[in-house]
Amino acid sequence: MEKWIIRDVLEKAYKEDMPFGDITTDYSVPENVNSRAYMITKQEGVIAGIEVCIEAFKMLDPDTKVIPLVEDGDFVEAGTRILEIEGKSRALLKAERTALNLLQRLSGIATITRLYVEKIIGYNAKVTDTRKTTPGLRALEKYAVRKGGGTNHRLSLSDGVLIKDNHIKAVGGIKKAVEAVREHIPHTVKIEVEAETLKQVKEALESGADIIMLDNMPPDIMEQAVKMINHRAITEASGNVTLDNIQKIAATGVDIISIGALTHSVKAMDISMKFE
Amino acid sequence: MEKWIIRDVLEKAYKEDMPFGDITTDYSVPENVNSRAYMITKQEGVIAGIEVCIEAFKMLDPDTKVIPLVEDGDFVEAGTRILEIEGKSRALLKAERTALNLLQRLSGIATITRLYVEKIIGYNAKVTDTRKTTPGLRALEKYAVRKGGGTNHRLSLSDGVLIKDNHIKAVGGIKKAVEAVREHIPHTVKIEVEAETLKQVKEALESGADIIMLDNMPPDIMEQAVKMINHRAITEASGNVTLDNIQKIAATGVDIISIGALTHSVKAMDISMKFE
Amino acid sequence: MEKWIIRDVLEKAYKEDMPFGDITTDYSVPENVNSRAYMITKQEGVIAGIEVCIEAFKMLDPDTKVIPLVEDGDFVEAGTRILEIEGKSRALLKAERTALNLLQRLSGIATITRLYVEKIIGYNAKVTDTRKTTPGLRALEKYAVRKGGGTNHRLSLSDGVLIKDNHIKAVGGIKKAVEAVREHIPHTVKIEVEAETLKQVKEALESGADIIMLDNMPPDIMEQAVKMINHRAITEASGNVTLDNIQKIAATGVDIISIGALTHSVKAMDISMKFE
Amino acid sequence: MEKWIIRDVLEKAYKEDMPFGDITTDYSVPENVNSRAYMITKQEGVIAGIEVCIEAFKMLDPDTKVIPLVEDGDFVEAGTRILEIEGKSRALLKAERTALNLLQRLSGIATITRLYVEKIIGYNAKVTDTRKTTPGLRALEKYAVRKGGGTNHRLSLSDGVLIKDNHIKAVGGIKKAVEAVREHIPHTVKIEVEAETLKQVKEALESGADIIMLDNMPPDIMEQAVKMINHRAITEASGNVTLDNIQKIAATGVDIISIGALTHSVKAMDISMKFE
Amino acid sequence: MEKWIIRDVLEKAYKEDMPFGDITTDYSVPENVNSRAYMITKQEGVIAGIEVCIEAFKMLDPDTKVIPLVEDGDFVEAGTRILEIEGKSRALLKAERTALNLLQRLSGIATITRLYVEKIIGYNAKVTDTRKTTPGLRALEKYAVRKGGGTNHRLSLSDGVLIKDNHIKAVGGIKKAVEAVREHIPHTVKIEVEAETLKQVKEALESGADIIMLDNMPPDIMEQAVKMINHRAITEASGNVTLDNIQKIAATGVDIISIGALTHSVKAMDISMKFE
Amino acid sequence: MEKWIIRDVLEKAYKEDMPFGDITTDYSVPENVNSRAYMITKQEGVIAGIEVCIEAFKMLDPDTKVIPLVEDGDFVEAGTRILEIEGKSRALLKAERTALNLLQRLSGIATITRLYVEKIIGYNAKVTDTRKTTPGLRALEKYAVRKGGGTNHRLSLSDGVLIKDNHIKAVGGIKKAVEAVREHIPHTVKIEVEAETLKQVKEALESGADIIMLDNMPPDIMEQAVKMINHRAITEASGNVTLDNIQKIAATGVDIISIGALTHSVKAMDISMKFE
Repeated sequence: MEKWIIRDVLEKAYKEDMPFGDITTDYSVPENVNSRAYMITKQEGVIAGIEVCIEAFKMLDPDTKVIPLVEDGDFVEAGTRILEIEGKSRALLKAERTALNLLQRLSGIATITRLYVEKIIGYNAKVTDTRKTTPGLRALEKYAVRKGGGTNHRLSLSDGVLIKDNHIKAVGGIKKAVEAVREHIPHTVKIEVEAETLKQVKEALESGADIIMLDNMPPDIMEQAVKMINHRAITEASGNVTLDNIQKIAATGVDIISIGALTHSVKAMDISMKFE
Repeated sequence: MEKWIIRDVLEKAYKEDMPFGDITTDYSVPENVNSRAYMITKQEGVIAGIEVCIEAFKMLDPDTKVIPLVEDGDFVEAGTRILEIEGKSRALLKAERTALNLLQRLSGIATITRLYVEKIIGYNAKVTDTRKTTPGLRALEKYAVRKGGGTNHRLSLSDGVLIKDNHIKAVGGIKKAVEAVREHIPHTVKIEVEAETLKQVKEALESGADIIMLDNMPPDIMEQAVKMINHRAITEASGNVTLDNIQKIAATGVDIISIGALTHSVKAMDISMKFE
Repeated sequence: MEKWIIRDVLEKAYKEDMPFGDITTDYSVPENVNSRAYMITKQEGVIAGIEVCIEAFKMLDPDTKVIPLVEDGDFVEAGTRILEIEGKSRALLKAERTALNLLQRLSGIATITRLYVEKIIGYNAKVTDTRKTTPGLRALEKYAVRKGGGTNHRLSLSDGVLIKDNHIKAVGGIKKAVEAVREHIPHTVKIEVEAETLKQVKEALESGADIIMLDNMPPDIMEQAVKMINHRAITEASGNVTLDNIQKIAATGVDIISIGALTHSVKAMDISMKFE
Repeated sequence: MEKWIIRDVLEKAYKEDMPFGDITTDYSVPENVNSRAYMITKQEGVIAGIEVCIEAFKMLDPDTKVIPLVEDGDFVEAGTRILEIEGKSRALLKAERTALNLLQRLSGIATITRLYVEKIIGYNAKVTDTRKTTPGLRALEKYAVRKGGGTNHRLSLSDGVLIKDNHIKAVGGIKKAVEAVREHIPHTVKIEVEAETLKQVKEALESGADIIMLDNMPPDIMEQAVKMINHRAITEASGNVTLDNIQKIAATGVDIISIGALTHSVKAMDISMKFE
Repeated sequence: MEKWIIRDVLEKAYKEDMPFGDITTDYSVPENVNSRAYMITKQEGVIAGIEVCIEAFKMLDPDTKVIPLVEDGDFVEAGTRILEIEGKSRALLKAERTALNLLQRLSGIATITRLYVEKIIGYNAKVTDTRKTTPGLRALEKYAVRKGGGTNHRLSLSDGVLIKDNHIKAVGGIKKAVEAVREHIPHTVKIEVEAETLKQVKEALESGADIIMLDNMPPDIMEQAVKMINHRAITEASGNVTLDNIQKIAATGVDIISIGALTHSVKAMDISMKFE
Repeated sequence: MEKWIIRDVLEKAYKEDMPFGDITTDYSVPENVNSRAYMITKQEGVIAGIEVCIEAFKMLDPDTKVIPLVEDGDFVEAGTRILEIEGKSRALLKAERTALNLLQRLSGIATITRLYVEKIIGYNAKVTDTRKTTPGLRALEKYAVRKGGGTNHRLSLSDGVLIKDNHIKAVGGIKKAVEAVREHIPHTVKIEVEAETLKQVKEALESGADIIMLDNMPPDIMEQAVKMINHRAITEASGNVTLDNIQKIAATGVDIISIGALTHSVKAMDISMKFE
C-alpha cells in the first residue's frame, strides 16, 4: 500500500475531526504527559489496517512508538493485543478514534471476506469484491479484501471492461459492443460481458468475451452456463451471494464469485484502545 | 447540507472511480445517446441522500434532469421509485455506482436510526450518533442520522467536550479536568464527563459537568444514576446499545442514548437503478 | 495547535510568495552559505506564534536550527530576543517575511487582547473573540487570543448557536426559534440569543436560552438586563467595546465581553529579524 | 481580478466557517424563506471588494441577486448603501460574515491607502505597498491598495529583485550581488538595491541598480541621496512612513514611498449588513 | 474525456501562468472590450484538444463563445481555421497561450501517431503508446494518441501488469513471477512479460503470459518469436521504433508496436491564434 | 529550486501513475528485497533534474540512498553514469518511470538550450525561453533552460509586461498602451512592446518601452531596428529561430533571442536506469 494513499485518507479524516483541534485534550492534558496504550480485539477476526494505524499515530507525532504485534491478514482470537503505542498522551487521545474507525472497518472487511473464502475451500472459485466501496476509501477497502483472502475485481472504471445491458442496448447488440470496446481499449485489459440468460451467455461467448458474468442465475442454470462456456472464458457469478448460498454457487464450477456486501455493508470489527 | 460538502465527496469519488475515464462506456456508447432511468428500492426503509444523487448526476453533465419523487426522511416501501433521471447515457452510466454507493449507505443509516427511534417512542430519550463515522463522510452520515429521526452528538473534537478516563488520569481527578477545560473552552460549549460507576457520577455532578455519560452501566445502576443526577445534568447512555436492549435503557429515564453502530456498521439499503 | 493547521497556512503562504522561487536569493546567495539570525521585538507586547515561526523555517530546510527564547503568551519588553535561527542563508532569507507576517499579526492579537484583559482585572467578565477573523487564519488567530488571556467564542457556524434578529423573524418569534434549534442541534452545544432590549432579554430568558447576548446596550440598561437574568443564563456584552469603555461594561456584571476588533483590526507587533 | 483567485479564498473561508454547516440557520430558518438585505457603511472611506462580495453570495446560492450600488475605488460617506442582496435567507445569513470580513478588510486597506495618497498630492511620489500582506490574501490586498490609489511593489519573491544587506554580505559586495543577479534574472525585471547610507547609495548607483531603496533615512539625507542619484535610478523611500511624515518624505523628491502598514495593520472599515 | 480531468489541468496551468493576474492585459485592455479571434494551423496535421480549448476559454469567462470548425482526429491542411472564439478581449488574451500550449502539444502527438499508423497500413499491428508521458498530462496525451489512430498501452501501474527483468530476478524466475502476480491481480487484467531472447520468449509462453513484449529484438529474431508464440499470446514489439523501421517491425507479424517517442519527444504542431 | 515545487509535480505524477499502487511490483517483489541501480546516458547532452530524481526516489521511500555523480548543468558523454540508487526494490521499480520522465525531459531542454547557446558564442545575445512551456511544469522547465546556459523570459503573465498588437488595438495606440500599463504595474517590472516593422519600433521607442521585441523580422530589417534603438531599450529577437539561423540573428546585435522550441518541442534525452 502506497503511504501517500494512507496519508491522504488520514489527512482528510483529521481535518474533519479536528477543524480547530481537540478542545478536551488540548485544555485538560498537559503537553508533556506521556502514555502507553494498546489495541485489543473484543471478538475474533482477521486484522487489516496495521500500517494505517501506525501512520495515524505518527502523523500527529512522528516520535510516537507504535509496535505491531500481529500482521495484516492474521486471524486473531478475541482478547488479542494487536498494537502497542507509546508517546505523547495528546497525540494518542486525538488519534484514537480515527485509527480505530479505519482499523475496525478494514478488519471487518477482512473478516467477512475470510468467512466467505472458508465456505468454499476445496472449490475452484475465488471470492472477489466489487466497486460497491466507500467513496474515498476504495484502495484501502480493496486491500482489506485481499488480506481476508479474496481478490479484487476491477479497481475503477478505467481499468476493466464490464459490458452491461445498457451498454449493449446503446450500441445495438453484444457483438457490436464487444467489438467497439476491443478496438479502443488497452490490449492489457480483458473484456467482461454481463449475461442473465443462457442465450446471452452464448452471444457473449461468440463475441469473444474474456470473462462472462453470470448475473443472478439460479445454480442449475449457472451450471449449464459454466459447461457451455467450457473454459473458453472466465466465469463470474454475481448477485445476492450470501454465506448460505455461496457453496452452491461454487459448486457450479464458476471461477469467480463477486460479492458487493464485502464492502457495502461492513460490520466493524470490535476493537478497542486501552490506556495503561 | 452545504453543496460544497457534497461536491467534495463526489469529486473524490469520481477521481477514484475514473482516473482515466470509463473505458467501457466511452468506447461502446456513442456520445449523443440519451437514456431515462429511475432508482427503485428493493426493500423498505428511510431514504437519505436525494440531494447527493442529484449532484452526482449533474456533476458529470449539468444538463441531466433529475426529478426526486420522495424526500430525505421519507419512509418508503420496497418497490418505490425514488428518483427519475434523464440525460446523456454516458453520464448516467458513469454516475450510477457512485450515486448508489452514497444513497444506499445514507439510506441504510437513516433506516437503522429510525428502527432505534421507533423502539423508544413514548420515552424521553433521544437516539444519538457518535464520532464512529466513515473518514471523509462524517457530515453526510450525521445528516442521515438526523433524517432517520436521530440527533447528533458532537460533530468533531473541536465542538464538544468529552472528558474520559484518560483525560482525568492525566490531569489528576475529574474536578481538575473539568475546571481546566472550562477555563479555556468557548462559553458556547457544554462539558460532558464519562462515568462508569455511581461514585464517578457523583464526582462528575460535583464538578459541575453539563452532561454525564453513563458508560456501559447495567440498567438498574443507570436508573440510580439518573435519579442521583436528577436533571442537574443531561444524562447520556452509551455502550453496547442494541435494538433488543434500547427500551430497557430508555426506561431508566436517560435523556440521550448514543449508538456507534448507527454509522460504524452500516447495512446498505437495497436500491437499484433501472434504465428504461 | 495541530501542526497540519500551521503547515496548511505556511504552504499557502509560500506558494503565494514564491511561485517560481526567490530570484534575488537564488541568484546571489550561494547554496552552501550559512547564517545566524534572531528575531527581536521593537516594542513591548505579548508573543504568539513561536511554533509557527519554527515550522516556517523548518519547512524550507528541515536542518535549520530554531531556538525559541520565550514562550507564546509571554509578555516581553521592546528589545527582547525571542527566537534564534541558524541554517542555510537561503532558507533564512526566504522564510523571513512569511514568518514575520504571521508572528507579528498573532503577537499583535495577543497584545491587544491582553490590554483588554488587564483593563477588567477584578471583574467577573472574560474577554472573548468573534468570527471576525481573517479568512484562512481563524485557528491561528483564535489561538493568539487565548495566548493574550482571552477566551474564544464559537469557532465556526457549526459549533455554536447564535440566534439573531433575522433568524427570529424567519421562524416567527424567539421561542419558536429556540425550540426549532434545540430540537436538532447536538446536545453538547449551548443556545445563545441576541437581545437588544430588555423586552427581548425577557423573551430570550423565557425561551430557555443558555446565553443571552446583550447587543449594543447602554451600560445602565445592560446592568438591568444582567440583574433580570440573574445567572439563569450566561450574559455576553457585544458591540463597540473599546479600551475606554470596557471597564464600565464589565461593571455591569456580564460574564463575557466579545470584541470583534481583537481580530478584525490587528496592529502588527513590531518585530524584526536581524542577521548576525 | 481573476475569479478563481477570489473563489479560492472564499472556498477556504467557507470550509473554515462551516465544517458541518450553520447549525443556527439550518435548524431555524426554513429552506424556502427569502430575504432582502443591503450592505451599508457606518463610516466614510474607499470601497474595495464588491466582486468578492458578489462571489461570496453566489457561491452559496447561484440564484442570489446581488446588485452593486458603488464601484471599487469609490469614496463613500458614512451611511451609503453599497450592495443590495436578494435570495434565500439561509444563503444570506451564512455568507454575511465571510463577505463582510473580506469587504471590511479590503475597504480598510483602500481607505488608508487613499489617506496616504492624498497627503502627497502635488508631489511626484507614488504610494506603494510591500510584501507585508496577510498570508493567503496577497492578491486581494494588493488589489485593494490599487483601488485606494496606490501602486504595488513586487508581488512575490519571484517577480522582483531586492538586494538587501544579507544578500550583499553573502556574496561579498553590492557590485558582485548585482552582477550575479543580473546574469540570471529575466530581462523583464528590474534590480533594486537597499541602501542605508549615502555611501551605499553611491555603490548601488555604480553597480547599475535600476531602483535604489533609501531605507530609514532622515529626510535631509534622503534628499541628498535623491540628488546624487539624479534620475539615474528610481528612488524608493522605505521605513516608518506615517501620515504625519509622508509629506516630508515626498518633499525629498523620491519616486516611490513604500508603506508596510497599508496591509500589515489594517483597520477594518465599518460596514454592516442589514436585513429588510 | 471527463471534463474534470481537463479542468484540473487548466486550473493548474492558470494558477501557474497568472499567480497575480495578467498585468499587461488587466492594465491596458478595458474590461468591456470584446474581440473575435480564430485558431489557424500553420502546418498540416491531426487535431486533438478542441474540447480542452473550449474549456480553457470558458473557464476564464463562461460567456465566451467558442465554435469548433473541425473535430479531434481530423487531418487538416496548413491554413485551416479550427476554432472561432468571441468574447471579452481580456479573457481571450489571457487564455491564448494556455489553450495553445495544450492544443499544439496534443495535436503534435496525434500527428506523429498518425504518421506511424499510416506507415503500417495493411499490417496487423497497432501503434501503441507507453507510460513515457508528461507528468500531469497522461490522460490528455493518451487521448491524443487515440485521436491519431493509435491505441493505449496500460494507463498506469495499477491497471496492467508488465513483468520485467528486475521483477523476475527479485522473485526468482519468470514462472514464479507470473504465478505470484496472477494469484493476486484482478481477473480483469492481462499479464505481460518482457522478453529479450527467444529463450525468454519460450519461458514467458510456458508461464502462461497473456502478452509477450519482444524488447529490442532484431526483426529476424522477432519474426521467429512471433512464430514460436503462434497466437498463444499477444505479441508486442518495443524499443527504438522509428518511422524508418516500423514497417520492418510490423512485417514480423507482431500485434502491437509500442513507441515511447509518441509522447516523450513531442513536436508541437504549429497553430496560432489570430485576432480579427 | 524550492523542494515543494518538485514535490507538487511528483505527487501529481505518482497519483496519476499509481491510483491503486503498482500491481506488478506489489504482487511479485517481496517487500524486503533491496536493489542497486544507476542511471546512465545513452547519448551526450546536458543534465538537468538531478534533484528531481533524488526527491522522486525518496518520496516513495525516505531510506533510499541516492548518490548523484554529476551536477545539473554538466555536459556528459553517452555512457555516463549520472546517479546511483540503492534501496527497496519496490520503491526503485515504482519510481523509475516517473524519475526518468522528468529527468529525460529536463535534460532534453538543457541540451537543446546549450546547442543554441554555443551557436552564438562571441555574440552579445542571450538565449531565452518563452511561456510555451508544459502546463504544470513551468518552474522545472525554466530551470532546465538556465542549466543549459539560457536565461528566462518572464515567468508568468504576472511578472512581466508584453504589449502585443491586440493590446495596442484595444486601447488605441502604442503610446496609450504603454502609459496605461506604466501607471499601474509595479515599478519593479519593465515594459516590453512587440514590433513587427521599423515604424512600430520607432513608436515603441518613443513610448518609452524598456524592451522592444523584434518579431519575425528579416535579419537586415532587424539590424536596422537594433541601430535605430541604439541601446535606448533592450532588443529581443523572436519568431522562428532555429539552430541554422540563430547566428545571423545574433549578428544583428540584438540582446535577447527568445525561442519557443526550447520547451514546446522537447526531445527527451536518452537516459535509462539499470539494475545491478
